[in-house]
Amino acid sequence: MAYPQTAFKAVTLNPGSLIQKRQETVSSATLLYQLEILKSTGRYDAFKLKWHSSYDDAPDVWPIPNHLFWDSDIAKWIEGACYVLQTHPNAEIDAAIHELVDMIRSAQQPDGYINIHFTVVEPEKRFTNLRDFHELYNAGHLIEAALAHQDLYHNDHLMEPILKYVKLLCKTFGDGPNQIHGYPGHPEIELALLRLFERTKDPEHFKLANYFITERGNPTGDDGQHFYVSEAKRRGDDPRKRPDYWPDKSCLWYYSAHAPILEQKSIEGHSVRAMYLLTAAADLILKSESTTPDLKQAVLGLWDNMVDRKMYVTGGIGAMKQWEGFGLDYFLPQGTDEGGCYAETCAAIGVMMLAERLLQSDLDGRFTDIMELCLYNAVLTSMSPNGKEFTYVNQLASSEADPSQRSSWFTCACCPPNILRLLGHIGGYIYTTTGSSANGDIQITTHLYISSTLDLETLGGKGSLTQETNWPWDGTVKFRLKSREDNVTLKVRIPGWASDDFKLSPELLDIGVDKGYLTIPGSWLAENPIFELQLPMKPRLITPHPFTNQDTLSIARGPIVYCVEDTDNPWVTDHFRSLQLDPKCQFIEHDVRDRSTGDEYIALRVENGVSLFKAGAVSGPSTEVKQSKAMRDQGEIVEKLNFVPYFFRASRGGNGQSRVGIRQWHR
Amino acid sequence: MAYPQTAFKAVTLNPGSLIQKRQETVSSATLLYQLEILKSTGRYDAFKLKWHSSYDDAPDVWPIPNHLFWDSDIAKWIEGACYVLQTHPNAEIDAAIHELVDMIRSAQQPDGYINIHFTVVEPEKRFTNLRDFHELYNAGHLIEAALAHQDLYHNDHLMEPILKYVKLLCKTFGDGPNQIHGYPGHPEIELALLRLFERTKDPEHFKLANYFITERGNPTGDDGQHFYVSEAKRRGDDPRKRPDYWPDKSCLWYYSAHAPILEQKSIEGHSVRAMYLLTAAADLILKSESTTPDLKQAVLGLWDNMVDRKMYVTGGIGAMKQWEGFGLDYFLPQGTDEGGCYAETCAAIGVMMLAERLLQSDLDGRFTDIMELCLYNAVLTSMSPNGKEFTYVNQLASSEADPSQRSSWFTCACCPPNILRLLGHIGGYIYTTTGSSANGDIQITTHLYISSTLDLETLGGKGSLTQETNWPWDGTVKFRLKSREDNVTLKVRIPGWASDDFKLSPELLDIGVDKGYLTIPGSWLAENPIFELQLPMKPRLITPHPFTNQDTLSIARGPIVYCVEDTDNPWVTDHFRSLQLDPKCQFIEHDVRDRSTGDEYIALRVENGVSLFKAGAVSGPSTEVKQSKAMRDQGEIVEKLNFVPYFFRASRGGNGQSRVGIRQWHR
Repeated sequence: MAYPQTAFKAVTLNPGSLIQKRQETVSSATLLYQLEILKSTGRYDAFKLKWHSSYDDAPDVWPIPNHLFWDSDIAKWIEGACYVLQTHPNAEIDAAIHELVDMIRSAQQPDGYINIHFTVVEPEKRFTNLRDFHELYNAGHLIEAALAHQDLYHNDHLMEPILKYVKLLCKTFGDGPNQIHGYPGHPEIELALLRLFERTKDPEHFKLANYFITERGNPTGDDGQHFYVSEAKRRGDDPRKRPDYWPDKSCLWYYSAHAPILEQKSIEGHSVRAMYLLTAAADLILKSESTTPDLKQAVLGLWDNMVDRKMYVTGGIGAMKQWEGFGLDYFLPQGTDEGGCYAETCAAIGVMMLAERLLQSDLDGRFTDIMELCLYNAVLTSMSPNGKEFTYVNQLASSEADPSQRSSWFTCACCPPNILRLLGHIGGYIYTTTGSSANGDIQITTHLYISSTLDLETLGGKGSLTQETNWPWDGTVKFRLKSREDNVTLKVRIPGWASDDFKLSPELLDIGVDKGYLTIPGSWLAENPIFELQLPMKPRLITPHPFTNQDTLSIARGPIVYCVEDTDNPWVTDHFRSLQLDPKCQFIEHDVRDRSTGDEYIALRVENGVSLFKAGAVSGPSTEVKQSKAMRDQGEIVEKLNFVPYFFRASRGGNGQSRVGIRQWHR
Repeated sequence: MAYPQTAFKAVTLNPGSLIQKRQETVSSATLLYQLEILKSTGRYDAFKLKWHSSYDDAPDVWPIPNHLFWDSDIAKWIEGACYVLQTHPNAEIDAAIHELVDMIRSAQQPDGYINIHFTVVEPEKRFTNLRDFHELYNAGHLIEAALAHQDLYHNDHLMEPILKYVKLLCKTFGDGPNQIHGYPGHPEIELALLRLFERTKDPEHFKLANYFITERGNPTGDDGQHFYVSEAKRRGDDPRKRPDYWPDKSCLWYYSAHAPILEQKSIEGHSVRAMYLLTAAADLILKSESTTPDLKQAVLGLWDNMVDRKMYVTGGIGAMKQWEGFGLDYFLPQGTDEGGCYAETCAAIGVMMLAERLLQSDLDGRFTDIMELCLYNAVLTSMSPNGKEFTYVNQLASSEADPSQRSSWFTCACCPPNILRLLGHIGGYIYTTTGSSANGDIQITTHLYISSTLDLETLGGKGSLTQETNWPWDGTVKFRLKSREDNVTLKVRIPGWASDDFKLSPELLDIGVDKGYLTIPGSWLAENPIFELQLPMKPRLITPHPFTNQDTLSIARGPIVYCVEDTDNPWVTDHFRSLQLDPKCQFIEHDVRDRSTGDEYIALRVENGVSLFKAGAVSGPSTEVKQSKAMRDQGEIVEKLNFVPYFFRASRGGNGQSRVGIRQWHR
């Protein structure tokens, strides 16, 4: 079963699409920009294992030293760089990768151990706080870097030390009497080990991943206690000193470790941790489908709980800032002044990773719809068009406390290199190819519509599938299959929002969509190697579940969710909180080529059914309903309300006022 | 300026009203019931200063020992008992008061100090943690008990030791070089000292109250630092060990001490503390009006912020459970599963106390409307009709985690004796009498409509004002003034909800309502000593501010807010979360005399425009608006929806499902 991290090599993005342009920006600007930041902040040289002055800093988030993730920052950059360099050779980047790999090699301890903090700062504390410190998370990213490095350079220069480190880990962790019966507080190594196993076929790699995934949350796994409880006792932790991210006395749920995955009924805790864990679990299911039906049911249950009750209309997850994670069912405020809206970039990338794995075992468009929703909204909004500014938090509404803006970098810098590496191999998310040239039958599934060419190996030789489209602005997709064989079947995705109104030309009789995918038989394809799919691309008004208490309207068009910004609506003074929109409003579309960024998109305008509610005129804890309605109907009329794609927000200066969901005006 | 705690002695509640029946219950059942609990839990004997086994218990809420409030539990019971015994002599209660007072006297230390915990358990820590431990709070309640005791018994048996203790406090606290430059974490003593000053006229008592009120929040008051900061340093507190009620690293706002009151712009923190503090501040303003215009402006600003943005439709305040206090502006979820709804009983009593003080300086019905709202809803709901079960939290909607129910007692038992003492002197909230028989002009203001007689002293001798009404069920109030003089002016309150439709008989020409009060001139009164006020008592649909994101309908009738309960609506399975109500619905009223409780009230029924939304049918993070509306319109029709007064909830068994605000059904 291929991973997007390798499958992308068979896919070439054609110039001009939004995604290809962002990938090009990553290649031409972001890679080098991030390299400079790695250097200026001390990260680049950190594997030299010298003291850095910042190691003395008090933690921003106690008890985690600010530099604890530096290993992963380097590893993720290497990984992303190796993806980009597959198609965009760059001598400067190449030299940096070589130097970094040399440093990592030289940082390896005699027994194989590799970690900056626990070699330089607290060597005596190695593997004593799996719960809060990120040793195994860092190790996981090093593994992923090594896989990407090996794929690019076809050598073991990075893989060799990493395999040695993994050997140490396999020896250290497990259920044996002299092993640590624990698992990482921040999952990541699990999915990395499974990818490594796919490469090495070393059963020890599978075994360790399986142990970490299935042991997690065992209430009696360590001498009859939960591992994190007994580990804390061994450290002599003062139970009254709780980490800053714990809202309560004990928060095993923060780590998705309150129960084994099998017994988890709702998605809880830190959203990135949960996504990385479930991505690994979904991959474990793929690798041992027959022995994991219960695990599959549990993971699917958690997916549904998340998507139905804990996901924003942008695909963002995690309302709560304190623990960077999930709140109560249906608790999805749009911004800080309403109670929270974190929606971390890495978490949305994690949703895409999880959706991709789930799709491999269950081809169901409900996963793909969410994957695409995340890509074009919660993920894409995290990087500026110039590739040099980023968001960590992707709120749906700004506030005085949290204006809509991007930053050049973060102390905890997980997000910027994560969008880098995702865009580096995004081609791997477009298609799934199964079957092989050996037995003759090949099935291609197209999940995403992005102008691209997929290389094929058939019995008769090389072939290709090409799609041409101006997606996400236009719903027409032209396919061209080049194959000397007629044994290629194709499935194309019909998004949920398009299911009532799509069209295939030439016409395909007996057309049937099964779980969001339309199957195109090989025989038809042989006769119609060039065909066109038309999907309806027009504005839709969407609204979240009534239990969210967000009686709001948002605008979507295809996979794109829109927002309003002060740049286009300079009259705004309250972050659009008092704005109200009649659901019977009409939209005017217009093509925009933004001068300052070069971005092209379709903007939307509403010229009717928009007003501003006079919020300050209401006093007291309640108002008679008739009076309340009258006050809402007597708001100040807004003549023009302009929307831009959410991913484009905060790209043109302005005052940082923005909102996705507009209060519904019930006239 | 009279206090309700003394003014009530001139008021006799006539039999039959809801309030009088609750007061009767307090007298016949609650007083004795609570006395038994005080005895069985160890509180009664605690002033004997012997060790109690519970003193070893780990705190439920770290770092506060569970028994830290026992002094106040005793004091509040004595205070309430002394009010009740003014009209309901009871030998057993009388004996208990005497015994308790003897114990308090004997518990006094040679220097005047009185406190259970800091004499028995940690004598070396006296006055070392004003921030979190409740020494001065307890002292305040002892002062209030002594005032009530002196009023009842006309002796100084309790007042004497309390004055000695207060003398110690006056010596200990202040801005002098050898004094502690601090103030209590939980305000209470400030309002008690001002009441004491009214009695003693001792300027030291005023001075200490004034110091506590105005020094609070001084950022540089203690050696250039905030007192709570320097106090914590003196204790050697580990800054990483934060109290359970602190959501963040530093929470001066929890104590309403983040800034001087003068500079506070929004109401924050623990809601009871804020109310007790502002009640004292409002009383300070009354006592020195000319020197406190800025303080008055600040207090009024905080009142408006609270009432307009942080108060539930029941009058409850404080959404947040962790700090028992205020959340963000407009953050008013109805229950635990939506994000919180604490609305502590003591806080609603505190709102009444604050409103009463504000009324004395500004006669404005907006304060009285809130005072009455609290009384009949957030406060009255906290005690069962039999007077033996109580609530601490007064949520607007139940959930699986927090069913609608009362308890026989609480570890932190502030609320039960608070409702006891409030009902004990509730007559003092009905009228304000100003002027005096000496100069001949008397002005009576009627704030609340409760059948009662107010005794008057006029130049011509004793007189009275009587009101007869079946309030809150009927809006007709019959007044009868008995006075041998025609120098009595009367103001009667016209509630905000009645301002369009009230009637006075006989007719009064040139009728004018100023800020919610109608002035009835002495000349008219002399001709019409018997007259009738008619206020419209019919169901109103009310809704909170749109920014609360609670698009709900609640029913009010007069001052009473209604709720739905499973007892009358046995089909409910989800705590009425999916219930939707058309604002065009019609109400059917019917008189109820409840068999099990003996309570009489008007129940309401809706037989049209009610349905249950199928919440589980919606999947994914959003739905197209048209589809969403169709789903809401296709809910399961409910034939009969029955409402009972909110104060009556949880009085008849049932499954603990209840809700005040019903989702609005926009058809």
